Amino acid sequence: MIDHLRGYFPILDWGKTYNRSAFSNDMIAAVIVTIMLIPQSLAYALLAGLPPEAGIYASIAPIILYAIFGTSRALAVGPVAVVSLLTASAVGQVAEQGTAGYAIAALTLAFLSGGFLMLLGLFRLGFLANFLSHPVIAGFITASGILIAFSQLKHLLGIAAEGHTLPQLIGSLWSHLGDINVITVVIGGLATAFLFWVRKGLKPLLRRLGASRTLADVLTKAGPVLAVAVTTLSVWLFGLADKGVKIVGEVPQSLPPLTLPGLSPELVQQLLVPAILISIIGFVESVSVAQTLAAKKRQKIDPDQELIGLGAANIGAAFTGGYPVTGGFSRSVVNYDAGAETPAAGAFTAVGLAIAAVALTPLVYYLPNATLAATIVVAVLSLVDFSILKKTWDYSKADFTAVAATIVLTLALGVEVGVASGVGISILLHLYKTSRPHVAEIGLVPGTEHFRNINRHKVETDPTILSLRVDESLYFVNARFLEDMVQARVSEGSEIKHVILMFSAVNEVDFSALESLEAINQRLTDLGIGLHLSEVKGPVMDRLQQTHFLHSLNGRVFLSQYNAWKQLAPHRDTAE
Amino acid sequence: MIDHLRGYFPILDWGKTYNRSAFSNDMIAAVIVTIMLIPQSLAYALLAGLPPEAGIYASIAPIILYAIFGTSRALAVGPVAVVSLLTASAVGQVAEQGTAGYAIAALTLAFLSGGFLMLLGLFRLGFLANFLSHPVIAGFITASGILIAFSQLKHLLGIAAEGHTLPQLIGSLWSHLGDINVITVVIGGLATAFLFWVRKGLKPLLRRLGASRTLADVLTKAGPVLAVAVTTLSVWLFGLADKGVKIVGEVPQSLPPLTLPGLSPELVQQLLVPAILISIIGFVESVSVAQTLAAKKRQKIDPDQELIGLGAANIGAAFTGGYPVTGGFSRSVVNYDAGAETPAAGAFTAVGLAIAAVALTPLVYYLPNATLAATIVVAVLSLVDFSILKKTWDYSKADFTAVAATIVLTLALGVEVGVASGVGISILLHLYKTSRPHVAEIGLVPGTEHFRNINRHKVETDPTILSLRVDESLYFVNARFLEDMVQARVSEGSEIKHVILMFSAVNEVDFSALESLEAINQRLTDLGIGLHLSEVKGPVMDRLQQTHFLHSLNGRVFLSQYNAWKQLAPHRDTAE
Repeated sequence: MIDHLRGYFPILDWGKTYNRSAFSNDMIAAVIVTIMLIPQSLAYALLAGLPPEAGIYASIAPIILYAIFGTSRALAVGPVAVVSLLTASAVGQVAEQGTAGYAIAALTLAFLSGGFLMLLGLFRLGFLANFLSHPVIAGFITASGILIAFSQLKHLLGIAAEGHTLPQLIGSLWSHLGDINVITVVIGGLATAFLFWVRKGLKPLLRRLGASRTLADVLTKAGPVLAVAVTTLSVWLFGLADKGVKIVGEVPQSLPPLTLPGLSPELVQQLLVPAILISIIGFVESVSVAQTLAAKKRQKIDPDQELIGLGAANIGAAFTGGYPVTGGFSRSVVNYDAGAETPAAGAFTAVGLAIAAVALTPLVYYLPNATLAATIVVAVLSLVDFSILKKTWDYSKADFTAVAATIVLTLALGVEVGVASGVGISILLHLYKTSRPHVAEIGLVPGTEHFRNINRHKVETDPTILSLRVDESLYFVNARFLEDMVQARVSEGSEIKHVILMFSAVNEVDFSALESLEAINQRLTDLGIGLHLSEVKGPVMDRLQQTHFLHSLNGRVFLSQYNAWKQLAPHRDTAE
Repeated sequence: MIDHLRGYFPILDWGKTYNRSAFSNDMIAAVIVTIMLIPQSLAYALLAGLPPEAGIYASIAPIILYAIFGTSRALAVGPVAVVSLLTASAVGQVAEQGTAGYAIAALTLAFLSGGFLMLLGLFRLGFLANFLSHPVIAGFITASGILIAFSQLKHLLGIAAEGHTLPQLIGSLWSHLGDINVITVVIGGLATAFLFWVRKGLKPLLRRLGASRTLADVLTKAGPVLAVAVTTLSVWLFGLADKGVKIVGEVPQSLPPLTLPGLSPELVQQLLVPAILISIIGFVESVSVAQTLAAKKRQKIDPDQELIGLGAANIGAAFTGGYPVTGGFSRSVVNYDAGAETPAAGAFTAVGLAIAAVALTPLVYYLPNATLAATIVVAVLSLVDFSILKKTWDYSKADFTAVAATIVLTLALGVEVGVASGVGISILLHLYKTSRPHVAEIGLVPGTEHFRNINRHKVETDPTILSLRVDESLYFVNARFLEDMVQARVSEGSEIKHVILMFSAVNEVDFSALESLEAINQRLTDLGIGLHLSEVKGPVMDRLQQTHFLHSLNGRVFLSQYNAWKQLAPHRDTAE
């Protein structure tokens, strides 16, 4: 009972052995992560089209709930770039940015997403996330990065623009190009250039100056804080807000408020599909980060319990003024590198952010949106990686097709259509591949008991025996293929007296395939030809024995192809 | 060039060798089929909600076009029960029965369906039909049979009723139950009872009386003609039409008219999805009939050319006052049994029906709808077969789930939702099964070079070596499963120095699986554990050799599992 309960509350596990050393390590990590998270949370809220405080609220309750229910020791949960973009896209379709309805719809999205993740976790359906293939994820992340960068251009240029697809964004930016605010462009441009330099140039510089690897990493991650401080000060000192530079403005000084997601049937219906998409994409991102970090310490995560942890985090976000969250890559890596040992580090981060929400929000009044946009652009452009196109092209055209379609459709038609098409196309291509299984006509390699493809090897055959090796599990998509193939071969070779199907690579025979085998047996019986099977695997044989097929089979089931050959071949043509 | 052309015009093949004997055989078959088809065509038109002549028109041009383009020698193309039901369901959603718009929409449906089949045929995409698994088809046919029978009850009771789902039909019949016409019920009841007796009792009786099997069959099939004649005469003689018995009424005496399908974008958009469904279901039904008949004479059909034949037939139906058609089971079997040798039999049938359309239609003026409904009910109830539930339950719960869902959803939500759900569910269940492949930990069977599952066999193992046999192709749906599994096993056994993955049953490694293998390799490298592969198949190895994986692999690729074991095991624990 307790053990069962512990499965759902991993905190009971690590909580027992928590000690002073873990505490101090967690504390240090928390301080570092908090400093990094303040600008990041504001920026992602901006990306999601929400007021800046939503980003901070979304990092408090969710982090604590994940600490209780999650299984990863280093994962940091909160707003992330792709999920923020998905939120903007989904919520933008039901409400106007800046309205109360928009914020409420974001809560609803978090609630539905959390509920869906919880359900998946309780029913142990985490495997559904596997339907997103690696190439589809890679293509989707790259296309999202581009979309996000374009969506932030308006803040860097100080103009209005909107849209959820590349053509929309470009069209909208183009039509507002006359409204450019030069000071904003300067701030945005300098901030972007500085942040790129921090990423590419600062770390090597610090290492040359003798900083430890960890220190260099941490200082690099603090770059955005410096950019925020400098640009905020500049706007304040030079009164740039009066010269058209858009600023964050007043942010309420408050702990996360208690909020209620809107649950009208209409709203739920509109947001359900986007919520499912967000859940699955967030889950995939989170689990791959958690797995990578866990593997480094030979720790284990439980994907089904992760669903519960992330579900709880999202439901928490829905009731505390947040929006959909997941385990983020950059924040988790910083947390891990800074030495976090347990999920308590996350809880301490939450406390740090709560203090910031209460005490520090006046400091960001003059923070220009352009700086936040710069931090987003620099972060997401590191996600853009077209090399997946080249890699999949070289490896497999099917994978290339899936990734190319995902990228093109995400850019052209938006994130939801893009990722859904990617999943659909990869499933169809897989089914297509298995629909035409490799079936080799085989013969005996002289002097051995091995059978090989007659087209590739010099083998012995017999005109009265047709031996076929089926290189795929038999199921409905390819059952008819085998039927057609056997019929075609039999109608060609009129001397054939026996057909032997070698089942060494058949891992499954479903009901459709069983009926196809029965049909093949019936047709061959009508023609006076024997049908035999060889090397049928145990589990497949168990299944077949529950049916009448083995009774109605006009031939026999042989343990090995060689046995079948020895029994059935009356004479042999040697191909030597 | 000629050969290529001949592929698209099978008539050039059999036409060359056509002789007097084939002619007389085809002629006899045509007469028998024509007699059977007259009432059947009228009945199916009634089922489709169209005027009776549409059923006859739909049997003329399509039969001729199929004779030119089709590859089956015995298939008889025309209206069939399930496609008629699908037509009623699809067209009923865009137009009112009895209006000109309804008939035009039926033409459009035939045109779109024909065009879609043609496209599939030209692009050789016939394999798409395989996505309908046998259990889904069986469940769908059974549920359709029930729906059709219920939809005909109104004609047997002489009341008005409508609906495309079982609850709708029952509700509608119930609410009109007060309007029952007693004479109609008597006619309908007697006709139904007679036709059931013809099916079950007449054939044995005729055989006992010394009739040949073929004659008994043919007379049995002519039963409906007798029922039609007797009830028509009764209605005429006793003036029953004035007493509320609904009759066929005036049918134009004419050859099939030239008609144009409606092609407004709106109509096309509404009918496109139903047209695709009708095409695929019709194709599957037709091909399985054609294949069964061809197999009996060691003939071959070409499924891709069948698409073109059926496509041409449907386009023909669209321009000659018909509606969607396909190769029907009962009419094709009668044609075959009556001795048809070539598609010319179909052409002669078309001539017979054309004569009937011009000369005989006044004879069916007093034919009661109840008789036609009786022929439909008796025909479709023979399709209802719940044994598929028992068979799939015994064989595989996944197949059972697919068939049960198809039956329930077809009855409850209609044919289109039912069949689409069936396809979706069977694909998901298949993917689910392959998402958790069987991976066995293996050890050496003492005294041999064979490796077997350590849980089933007494085998030698070594605590420093983890050998896993993967019993499934690796692709995105199960790639992460292997990743998790290896990580879980490695984090349990801390003595492990080498992991060997035996790939004898891996027929494919897609890009996602490649990345999973890279991730496994990376993690094992971090832990100081070697990763090795054994028994990698040729095509898989070819692929892997195009990548960097084999260079970055920290271990080796062994030709056989036994080689790997000999090289890596420093000492052995014998499990004896």
